[in-house]
Amino acid sequence: MNCYSRILLAVDLTDSCKEVAQQASCLAQQCEGQLHIVHVVEPQSLAYGDEVPIDLSSFHDAINDQAVSYLREFSKEFNIPEERQYLVFGVIHHEIHRIAKEQNMDLIVVGSHGRHGLAILFGSTLNDVIQAAHCDVLAVRVT
Amino acid sequence: MNCYSRILLAVDLTDSCKEVAQQASCLAQQCEGQLHIVHVVEPQSLAYGDEVPIDLSSFHDAINDQAVSYLREFSKEFNIPEERQYLVFGVIHHEIHRIAKEQNMDLIVVGSHGRHGLAILFGSTLNDVIQAAHCDVLAVRVT
Repeated sequence: MNCYSRILLAVDLTDSCKEVAQQASCLAQQCEGQLHIVHVVEPQSLAYGDEVPIDLSSFHDAINDQAVSYLREFSKEFNIPEERQYLVFGVIHHEIHRIAKEQNMDLIVVGSHGRHGLAILFGSTLNDVIQAAHCDVLAVRVT
Repeated sequence: MNCYSRILLAVDLTDSCKEVAQQASCLAQQCEGQLHIVHVVEPQSLAYGDEVPIDLSSFHDAINDQAVSYLREFSKEFNIPEERQYLVFGVIHHEIHRIAKEQNMDLIVVGSHGRHGLAILFGSTLNDVIQAAHCDVLAVRVT
């Protein structure tokens, strides 16, 4: 029996994510599991409490295009096909949990920056991700 | 290359730990890694802030004997030899980190009880374990 068959890698697409992705990819290989990837774009209106008085829609479009392109590029390096890539908008840990549940994942892999940077992106913390996860969570230490 | 070669399973020796141990054991097999186990006994004087006015030494001895016996029994089920079993006294997350560092572990495995029970034992939480860990941490969801 394999320990994990569906592994969801949650990334912010920064350079330090490569270490996390390498570990997730290694684990997927050893467990003969399927590696999926999610990147959550948190809309400015959520990050700043819905108090932004200007129209951010064109800004969002630009971010979206850029994020799609980064996600495609990043995923290619780890052989994750497009149908296993999820680009979503919302509160980071909520969206990670939603995708993990909808896609029936049994492991979520996230980066951990230790004492001085538990935040995996502005807004959500590793603790938020772990607390409400319905499955196991692996925190990969990044330097 | 194996993802993890030295895996430290941290347990409180309750029944729910068996699920965690099964997952750690599965992972150790698939990664061809070595499974170690630690159980931390937190002295009452630490748990209650050093304010206990009675002599607890005989109580500690009794707890120690019982814990050793439980740890031996528990470990046997998962084929963890005695030289890879650690029974230590102190603050839970400090001791887990100390053993993990001294024994050069690359993964710590702990149980996670979700929103209503993040504590892995009285005193320490999963967050404490993850924050100061020098290595990766796997939080196994227990029901």
